[in-house]
Amino acid sequence: MRLLPSWASPYPRQHLASDVLAGIIVTILVIPQSLAYALLAGLPPQAGLYVSILPVLAYALFGSSMIQAVGPVAITAIMTYSVLTPIAAPGSPAYIGLAAVLALGSGLLLVACGLLRLGFLANLLSRPVIAGFISGSAVLIVFSQLKHFFGIQPAGSDAATVLRALVDGGHLEMASLIGLLAVLALAFARLWLAGLLGRIGLKQAAAAFVVRLFPLLVVLTGTLAVIVWDLDRTHGVAVVGRIAEGLPGLVPFMPAAAEIRQLALPILLVALIGMVQNISMGQALAIRRRERLDANAELLGLGSANVVAAFSGGMPVGGGVSRTAVNVAAGAQTPLASIVSAAAMLVVVAGAAPLFARLPLAVLAASIIVAAVSMIDLRTLRQAWQYDRADGLAAWGTAVGVFLLGLEAGIGLGILFSLATLLYRASTPHIAVLGRIPDSEHFRNVDRHAVETLPGVLFLRIDESLFFGNLYALESRLASELEKAGDTRHVVLIMNAVNRVDATAMEVLNDLNRDLGGRGIALHFAEVKGPVQDRLIGTPLWQSLSGQVFLSVNDAYENLSRTSAE
Amino acid sequence: MRLLPSWASPYPRQHLASDVLAGIIVTILVIPQSLAYALLAGLPPQAGLYVSILPVLAYALFGSSMIQAVGPVAITAIMTYSVLTPIAAPGSPAYIGLAAVLALGSGLLLVACGLLRLGFLANLLSRPVIAGFISGSAVLIVFSQLKHFFGIQPAGSDAATVLRALVDGGHLEMASLIGLLAVLALAFARLWLAGLLGRIGLKQAAAAFVVRLFPLLVVLTGTLAVIVWDLDRTHGVAVVGRIAEGLPGLVPFMPAAAEIRQLALPILLVALIGMVQNISMGQALAIRRRERLDANAELLGLGSANVVAAFSGGMPVGGGVSRTAVNVAAGAQTPLASIVSAAAMLVVVAGAAPLFARLPLAVLAASIIVAAVSMIDLRTLRQAWQYDRADGLAAWGTAVGVFLLGLEAGIGLGILFSLATLLYRASTPHIAVLGRIPDSEHFRNVDRHAVETLPGVLFLRIDESLFFGNLYALESRLASELEKAGDTRHVVLIMNAVNRVDATAMEVLNDLNRDLGGRGIALHFAEVKGPVQDRLIGTPLWQSLSGQVFLSVNDAYENLSRTSAE
Repeated sequence: MRLLPSWASPYPRQHLASDVLAGIIVTILVIPQSLAYALLAGLPPQAGLYVSILPVLAYALFGSSMIQAVGPVAITAIMTYSVLTPIAAPGSPAYIGLAAVLALGSGLLLVACGLLRLGFLANLLSRPVIAGFISGSAVLIVFSQLKHFFGIQPAGSDAATVLRALVDGGHLEMASLIGLLAVLALAFARLWLAGLLGRIGLKQAAAAFVVRLFPLLVVLTGTLAVIVWDLDRTHGVAVVGRIAEGLPGLVPFMPAAAEIRQLALPILLVALIGMVQNISMGQALAIRRRERLDANAELLGLGSANVVAAFSGGMPVGGGVSRTAVNVAAGAQTPLASIVSAAAMLVVVAGAAPLFARLPLAVLAASIIVAAVSMIDLRTLRQAWQYDRADGLAAWGTAVGVFLLGLEAGIGLGILFSLATLLYRASTPHIAVLGRIPDSEHFRNVDRHAVETLPGVLFLRIDESLFFGNLYALESRLASELEKAGDTRHVVLIMNAVNRVDATAMEVLNDLNRDLGGRGIALHFAEVKGPVQDRLIGTPLWQSLSGQVFLSVNDAYENLSRTSAE
Repeated sequence: MRLLPSWASPYPRQHLASDVLAGIIVTILVIPQSLAYALLAGLPPQAGLYVSILPVLAYALFGSSMIQAVGPVAITAIMTYSVLTPIAAPGSPAYIGLAAVLALGSGLLLVACGLLRLGFLANLLSRPVIAGFISGSAVLIVFSQLKHFFGIQPAGSDAATVLRALVDGGHLEMASLIGLLAVLALAFARLWLAGLLGRIGLKQAAAAFVVRLFPLLVVLTGTLAVIVWDLDRTHGVAVVGRIAEGLPGLVPFMPAAAEIRQLALPILLVALIGMVQNISMGQALAIRRRERLDANAELLGLGSANVVAAFSGGMPVGGGVSRTAVNVAAGAQTPLASIVSAAAMLVVVAGAAPLFARLPLAVLAASIIVAAVSMIDLRTLRQAWQYDRADGLAAWGTAVGVFLLGLEAGIGLGILFSLATLLYRASTPHIAVLGRIPDSEHFRNVDRHAVETLPGVLFLRIDESLFFGNLYALESRLASELEKAGDTRHVVLIMNAVNRVDATAMEVLNDLNRDLGGRGIALHFAEVKGPVQDRLIGTPLWQSLSGQVFLSVNDAYENLSRTSAE
């Protein structure tokens, strides 16, 4: 058992300076979003700061990506909000407890998946479905923040409920003005600030840094405005409020069985989305940086970060797109940057947290809205539709499903779409009837080449491993070929592309052997791969095979042409 | 639009005699199991007779199998019992109504699947999983019938509840004796009667007929015993009781929205199991009889049979293994046999139904138990385990899951096992690094052949269509090959086995192109199939490709060897 993760033994000293600098920059830049995503999750804002400390350390120790940054993320936050609001009032002790259980459960599930090497499950969702899910969720996120602008308290998180509350009780107040100004400022910064700074002569890297710093400036300005004009006391502007003193430690708890039962499905979904997002982003980063991602180690890292988050801050965390982008842009080279960032955040929490007490919630809501709008990925949705109708349908179906039916039903739809595609794909294997190219030992598809065939002999090449999902296609194809050529006496299955024959396939082949035998047709095999042969050798199929097993297609051809000539 | 199904236009006259005879024989032979399976479903016994009339006609008109016989079947019956008992008391009007809704819902779902050409969904379950499900269900069926032997009324259908009721209140009575005798007689008939009759000189076909007739003899004997000794009145032996007079017609009803919501999952499961059982049996029959099964037509047939069953008898029906075996053995050639059988059953219901009034339930229970025991498929379970541990685990997991957790959770487990297998399989595509066989234009796997390679050029052949499920494997393999050969400047993806590139794959390839380009590595393609090329041509990938698209691997080899020589 190694004591240090591989990146730290030995630690490449040349990266020290850039890692330390990156860690400090990241901390400063992610403060606003950490507060905002905690708010989005329906939790006290400081929860977002707390889970940026110990969980980040856990990921640095167990994760596999060199530069992925873990912390509070928008999707996990809106999922937390959406699954917990029907059960408890946001911000209430019960709610806070359930959020911790959610983090713990999905964390343990991710660790279990990592240990059981189930990282391949991250392949469950296609990119269009993910884009649809994120886009639909982003619209829901925007809706969820309207309450901070218009002084409403909708009873649910779905679009219809929020809209109804807005129509019934929405009104303009001082918070609306602050929020609107913040949205305009943030949108301006995202869209035009970099270009503007470039035009006045700032270098690209510096301009990008200022743009990234801008949300913090907006947060500071908003707080200052509240302090100067006493907006919270005189105009009722909602603010973050006093943050509990002292450093965050580990708060041990034991979830009740009833809580786990209640949260079983949400835990599953949070874990799944966390897994998919983390691995797909990590994979792209790894390729770009000439590294390899170990998906199972990645699950261990993300899972342990969530387990730790459950006891220290109490909200689920994930690999954040913008967090990671900040980390990369700031020059992080190894997870040491994250460790430095965790330490710096500890300092912020200890010393600077009281500064956020009078930060207006509407400013945080504005930063959430601007981030959410940028998550709406219409380009991918449009491209998917243009490229492939099935993919497009899956993407739009998931997006609309999330918006209309909520996050859980929406992601359920997305999984169904993806699985149906998978099953359909698997159930349509490529199968070709072969003939011999005259005067050669080469065999080709009869539909595409001028080849010679043997009367009464059917050569069928199966281009995929045989398993329960594609046997129906094999049987159908065989039946239709036998119908076409009524005089068939020999069927030769060419198995050179078959890497595996599962138990169902073995039984179906056995049935085929028996049924064809009953019709006076012999079943032969050719070019069976070694491992497949080894496994078939003791089975009823091999023992009662009506035909022969040929080493090559040409052997079969020569042999059967002699037989039929006799 | 054709007015008659294809088998009837024109009807092959030479089959008339055998079809009519088979129809009549089938009717007589299936009477006991029709009554028994209705009882198993918790419905009045005559329901089993009723759904053997109009639903059978519906299947004859819309189904695709020539000789599959539809009617009440054990699996669907136990599923009905198991999903409805928690909601309503078996035999109560509410229960009978819900059973009809279940038949209607799953029938409509099957029709919809047929119209949407979703027959491939029957591939969802592997044979070991089906064997596990049926075996587990068979054990539950045996347990469910113990109440007719030992005078108990368990509160649920799971094994634990039945056992507890048995220990608490089970006792021997006259019905126990009748049931035990019936079980012994039926088991004797199944195991030894055919051999015995053969030894006394009966021909095989005649002996088989007597064996199949035996259950009816047992039923008649049991009824006679009750009549002669007045067992129902003097010893409290439970009997079928008076069957409503008159012919069964269509009873129209409109299910309430609440009922549909309540039964949504059961409807889905009954439809799925019906689909899987029907198509897998129909497919095997079609191959044996040189016919082709149209899976989607089959779903239309099964679905319409269930829709009709909802309004006439009110229990879900399916393609029955033993029913079909009887049909085949009796010499049925076309669905006319089923139409004759429906007519004959109508006569039975009209004239002979009162005869069953004093048929003891314990005899029906005995016939259910004997049938269920024969459904326990230990051979397949054992073989699956020997042949492939993953298949074996799925089979046993499903069987034990059904037994311990109930039918719904069990089949859920089975689906999960199958999907995990499917996903795992799909996520591990075969990818090979190729080299050229010296002095040829042939390229082979470098791990297996003595081939020459180009320094700095990586030839990677992908042996499967690219889609969201296997891209992680492609990226990982590529990353690991690039790590091995640090000086790679060109990557050539050989696409001759790639029949489709889905939207996710296109995007991932596009990302790869960009990321490799950033590392100074050019991405090339070779032997891209026509349809794949057509689709890729307008995409960002093709427009910004850093390398070239070669017609053949050899072109790429020649071209890149010149480039690297320069």
